[in-house]
Amino acid sequence: MALTLEDARNIISAAEAKATEIGQPMNIAVVDVGGNVISHVRMDGAWLGGIDISINKAFTSRAFDIQTKDLAENSQPNQQFYGIAASNNGRIMIFAGGIPLIRDGEVVGAIGVSGGSGNQDQDVAEAGVKAL
Amino acid sequence: MALTLEDARNIISAAEAKATEIGQPMNIAVVDVGGNVISHVRMDGAWLGGIDISINKAFTSRAFDIQTKDLAENSQPNQQFYGIAASNNGRIMIFAGGIPLIRDGEVVGAIGVSGGSGNQDQDVAEAGVKAL
Amino acid sequence: MALTLEDARNIISAAEAKATEIGQPMNIAVVDVGGNVISHVRMDGAWLGGIDISINKAFTSRAFDIQTKDLAENSQPNQQFYGIAASNNGRIMIFAGGIPLIRDGEVVGAIGVSGGSGNQDQDVAEAGVKAL
Amino acid sequence: MALTLEDARNIISAAEAKATEIGQPMNIAVVDVGGNVISHVRMDGAWLGGIDISINKAFTSRAFDIQTKDLAENSQPNQQFYGIAASNNGRIMIFAGGIPLIRDGEVVGAIGVSGGSGNQDQDVAEAGVKAL
Repeated sequence: MALTLEDARNIISAAEAKATEIGQPMNIAVVDVGGNVISHVRMDGAWLGGIDISINKAFTSRAFDIQTKDLAENSQPNQQFYGIAASNNGRIMIFAGGIPLIRDGEVVGAIGVSGGSGNQDQDVAEAGVKAL
Repeated sequence: MALTLEDARNIISAAEAKATEIGQPMNIAVVDVGGNVISHVRMDGAWLGGIDISINKAFTSRAFDIQTKDLAENSQPNQQFYGIAASNNGRIMIFAGGIPLIRDGEVVGAIGVSGGSGNQDQDVAEAGVKAL
Repeated sequence: MALTLEDARNIISAAEAKATEIGQPMNIAVVDVGGNVISHVRMDGAWLGGIDISINKAFTSRAFDIQTKDLAENSQPNQQFYGIAASNNGRIMIFAGGIPLIRDGEVVGAIGVSGGSGNQDQDVAEAGVKAL
Repeated sequence: MALTLEDARNIISAAEAKATEIGQPMNIAVVDVGGNVISHVRMDGAWLGGIDISINKAFTSRAFDIQTKDLAENSQPNQQFYGIAASNNGRIMIFAGGIPLIRDGEVVGAIGVSGGSGNQDQDVAEAGVKAL
């Protein structure tokens, strides 16, 4: 069941292809069931600031078994998880680009993407998910 | 292409002149293409809290190749990057005063300014940019 | 001159081949000239604790343009850099496995490896260096 | 009595001249009586890892009103301050290159230097001190 490095590479490769297609270089990370990084790549020209963000979007998605874009809605002022971004030593990312990876109905890890608009990050992450 | 210490000093000197002109002492920092500090100065009377902020505004501008005032707009509640300030171990500054430094069409570093109002910080940073 | 993601992948691939040859799964990371991660992989079965260590061995090697095994010697009690491991917010690794990457006589980044004994980490890192 | 930015620049300038004379690029920082940075410069080609270290050598020298090379002796295993490097959130540097700045018999700040051997850092810091 566990995600392998080969799985992670297939997922990253599909995400990269999507990023190339839309012309936006990205940071892409995959974490395992424990929330720990299996692999990360920064495409040429992608944001330096996205290294941390891609890894932590993946962590966040696995930490709460949720897409970070859905967590965003619940983390706005006056919503039920407002303030959650202060937890976990700054590792909680509450904007689009992180998606759990599911195999045979179980969460086995997550992908995190950072490098463009929220919509672009989401699209690239979704392309990665499809490769699992 | 790489920013030199001499470049950084010219940029800081121009920013200082502007700060003196408007009568507001400032912290001014310049980082290189890797987001690492080349030089920082705290003018006499400038905020202690601005040491960290000026350095991290410069880091943020390079990390996302964006002016921090533009990042501010996208980081408000319900906007696409709301929550980004929790990333990168607290180094992301989402208010005016950080600007990428561009040479021959490429980002080679950034300037960060902290010590006054958002408009003042922005004006002083812009004066620094013109010296490159 | 700048290291590309393709460069990083070639380096990591050569390091992985060596790790497979000696039968010890490894974490392998490559950073650029600014000390920022380009790519990281954790081979199946490699230590979770090595994610951070491999990335920070690479950072350390670039931060001081030195092999981490050489820094080790100078960081022992009563040596000139004793205590350096407390600097840079815990990112300085003072044991074998980090090596600068040099192209045309200039340091352009570094590789960091963690997963086995000091000698094994060093051997795998050296195999990576040869691929540049 | 307070150190001014002009004082800091004179001190840094003298230290830079010494670094140039010995052919070793350095990071040089000056802090005020509160241990807060007035100015920092990274000479072209100096270690990235020395940014943090130069600033924190200066902080340490003012924090304990002592040269960091003297603190080193007391911080070795089995000595009275062994373990002090774990205090102050990693800001305590216990190797040569930090020296208090004294005016009219009072400590008004400190200089910190990082970029070469312990002896080189100490020599460059001493050259800076003489400019006060």
